[in-house]
Amino acid sequence: MSLARARVLGRPALAVSRARCFATSSIRASAGPFYAGEPSGPQVKTTIPGPKSQKLLQELDTVFDTRSLNMICDFTKSHGNYLSDPDGNVLLDVFAQIASIPLGYNNPELLKIASSPEMASGIVNRPALGSFPSHDWADLLKTGLLRAAPKGLDQVFTAMAGSDANETAFKAAFMYRRQFERGGPEVDFTAEELASVMDNKAPGAAQLSILSFKTGFHGRLLGSLSTTRSKAIHKVDIPAFDWPQATFPQLKYPLEENAAENARIEQASLDEVEHLITSWHLPPAAVIVEPIQSEGGDNHASPEFFQKLRALTKKHNVLLIVDEVQTGVGATGKFWAHDHWNLQDPPDLVTFSKKAQAAGFYFGNPGLRPNKPYRQFNTWMGDPVRALLFRGIINEIEKHDLVNHTAKVGNYLFDNLQGLARKYPEHFQNLRGKDRGTFIAFDSPKRDEILKKAKEFGVNMGGSGASAVRLRPMLVFQKHHADILLETLEKVVKSI
Amino acid sequence: MSLARARVLGRPALAVSRARCFATSSIRASAGPFYAGEPSGPQVKTTIPGPKSQKLLQELDTVFDTRSLNMICDFTKSHGNYLSDPDGNVLLDVFAQIASIPLGYNNPELLKIASSPEMASGIVNRPALGSFPSHDWADLLKTGLLRAAPKGLDQVFTAMAGSDANETAFKAAFMYRRQFERGGPEVDFTAEELASVMDNKAPGAAQLSILSFKTGFHGRLLGSLSTTRSKAIHKVDIPAFDWPQATFPQLKYPLEENAAENARIEQASLDEVEHLITSWHLPPAAVIVEPIQSEGGDNHASPEFFQKLRALTKKHNVLLIVDEVQTGVGATGKFWAHDHWNLQDPPDLVTFSKKAQAAGFYFGNPGLRPNKPYRQFNTWMGDPVRALLFRGIINEIEKHDLVNHTAKVGNYLFDNLQGLARKYPEHFQNLRGKDRGTFIAFDSPKRDEILKKAKEFGVNMGGSGASAVRLRPMLVFQKHHADILLETLEKVVKSI
Repeated sequence: MSLARARVLGRPALAVSRARCFATSSIRASAGPFYAGEPSGPQVKTTIPGPKSQKLLQELDTVFDTRSLNMICDFTKSHGNYLSDPDGNVLLDVFAQIASIPLGYNNPELLKIASSPEMASGIVNRPALGSFPSHDWADLLKTGLLRAAPKGLDQVFTAMAGSDANETAFKAAFMYRRQFERGGPEVDFTAEELASVMDNKAPGAAQLSILSFKTGFHGRLLGSLSTTRSKAIHKVDIPAFDWPQATFPQLKYPLEENAAENARIEQASLDEVEHLITSWHLPPAAVIVEPIQSEGGDNHASPEFFQKLRALTKKHNVLLIVDEVQTGVGATGKFWAHDHWNLQDPPDLVTFSKKAQAAGFYFGNPGLRPNKPYRQFNTWMGDPVRALLFRGIINEIEKHDLVNHTAKVGNYLFDNLQGLARKYPEHFQNLRGKDRGTFIAFDSPKRDEILKKAKEFGVNMGGSGASAVRLRPMLVFQKHHADILLETLEKVVKSI
Repeated sequence: MSLARARVLGRPALAVSRARCFATSSIRASAGPFYAGEPSGPQVKTTIPGPKSQKLLQELDTVFDTRSLNMICDFTKSHGNYLSDPDGNVLLDVFAQIASIPLGYNNPELLKIASSPEMASGIVNRPALGSFPSHDWADLLKTGLLRAAPKGLDQVFTAMAGSDANETAFKAAFMYRRQFERGGPEVDFTAEELASVMDNKAPGAAQLSILSFKTGFHGRLLGSLSTTRSKAIHKVDIPAFDWPQATFPQLKYPLEENAAENARIEQASLDEVEHLITSWHLPPAAVIVEPIQSEGGDNHASPEFFQKLRALTKKHNVLLIVDEVQTGVGATGKFWAHDHWNLQDPPDLVTFSKKAQAAGFYFGNPGLRPNKPYRQFNTWMGDPVRALLFRGIINEIEKHDLVNHTAKVGNYLFDNLQGLARKYPEHFQNLRGKDRGTFIAFDSPKRDEILKKAKEFGVNMGGSGASAVRLRPMLVFQKHHADILLETLEKVVKSI
């Protein structure tokens, strides 16, 4: 591994050999990148944003809100784990477009698919999938999206992004619940239901809810935002449904030293869920939960918690929607994060987006198809372009065994972060994500400063919740990238 | 024009010369297709769905709800205005993927763009636009989406489809209104607002509404569905916000014979709007309206109605959102349908999707950017792939003057439909869309049978509302296509 490493402004280049002090393990990845063409390391040439980026930013700001802007990117010069900018800076990217790049920038295999006649047709001849699907749509689903379907689920409804994947899952849950209350799919709507719903009133407009968890995030459209509870700035001034929220377990770390206390915390959360299910004035048709609350600060709960949550929802005939928008597609060391739970009964609905590039929800129970057509419908109902890409992503994940790879690199990264946490306990608090691939986070009172400094040192990282650094590398993140990350983190915390 | 025309099963081929009886006008289009490669006419070889399609349909149904399916398509064999299926049937398509194909199937200029390295990069390196835009995003917006911006609007927020374009516009309206009530963008949220909103309660969750019109359609996610009032089947069993609806003018046709009555009907609607604005228990932050209610049955109102609606909303400091998802991008003979209104003050927000292929909303008032970052935000915030395509669409529209072309072809089509309406008044009722390009509709008591028969005769048409046939040809629909359509319609109504 010979890395021409970060020339940081006014600082000596990092010597990569220092990374050798970290524990090693047998990871195939150290042999070289999965795909050719990746830079050997970060290069920081200017402040970020540099002069060219600043000019582009000003130009963009005249027509597009740039206040959430992190950096301007030059994707044509980005490769693999490395993100470039117009000033020639090259950053190791462990944020990956908010956890949504699966296989690296300009992945050559995905570029092939993106340049294929099939893709061009998908772009130009965009179908209204629900009414005019292409002759190969079933094949594309079966060889693509459905090959990745979670265990026990064999149907898919395609959508556009995480937010509408969740909202269409909510709709499926509401229709299913009302159908059950009505006495089955063959029982027709009453005239009163059909009339009142046009006025947005009961009984046609269901007096039901979706139960979500505090600090959870499920999207920002008006229904999904009603279940999002991560930050007030996401919600303030927007009307919301009066839906219930339960406390998500706030586990104490390290887990092994707080087992009894954490079990108590999880049981209290489950008790609250059951209380809300049985008492909320708008009964929940479903509970939605992230396997690891991501935007809300990387909050974990044990497999036992989720097993009990599944049992509890079954007991009360409430559907369980597992929101795998951020956790899905390999990063936790399983294809789906809920694979870690070993459930006897699968979730009723599993939503996906981000690294899948396509979006939607999986389900297994045929009763979750509404009893009549045009109830779960819209013009595009997803995008075959993204379905084609997801098929390519699945193929590459299989070919390179990237889920197991990520599990191993994640273990390596976690072990070494533990070392850093022992050395710098004030900066690496509540380290979490053990045995969850590279889906790792820690809290730091100086989180924002860490993110800023890391960029100066050539690593693009993201935050979540109030004080968490969330690591969201791609599935092609390897041991030698982990070494750069670890070394940079140490350099960062030493400098502040 | 030499057309090898529809071989309809068991019926003699239609003789195209009969179309000559229709009135003519000086339309450049009759010279030949805009792009080479278009079939000379429909070909119907089997029942639809034919045996191959039926087999594919069964296969698809095992994994995807097919009950809303109209037909299986073979897009690889579709060209221009003609849609093919796996059984070799070739239909003149005047429904165009629910009004969302702008320039014909396999448009060669768009295929070039779809096959470009720029497009491949957009597909593989999908950015989180709000945080990590590409260096050329501003340029792409300026040379693309913003070149099509409605008069008076110079900003854009990009989204994924019509539904979230509308919901993000709603969010902009709610934030704007609350900011105004609070005393301006510099006044911060109160602690009570920030705390209560996490519980989905007032004052943080705004006690505001969006006013929409009866029989309007604005999407199917939970916020947009609360403004959709077209059909009960779209809404039943889904929770809804308690938002107000005003009656949309139900004009009497022909317009010229009912001018006084229609003026009265429109004023009654405006009075109802004003009453709801001033009295509804959740005050409307915005009124949303389609220039022509499309899904709800092609319901029109006069420019005067919309001028007065604009004045009324201004007077009460309520925003006007014009939903151009279906009416936008040329089909009405103007680029935006609201261009027909000659407004002095532009709408506050204009939403778009469908034929733009990209989606989002335009606005002009900088105050519609929220006062803080991350309030109007999501991971992808649109799709550069679709923005690239829309730029290509705009270029082709300009190059071929397709908006004016569509105005002319629309006039030709309308004039001849008037002839059919005189001849077959029972089948062509309330013919509407005069001077609105090809955005034409009529009612028929046997609407569903007409749609079915038309397909047998080689034309794919769509319905809307309870009894309307809605014509939604592409912008490359020409006089010779109109002749086929007219001839087929006559044949259809004669046969039933």
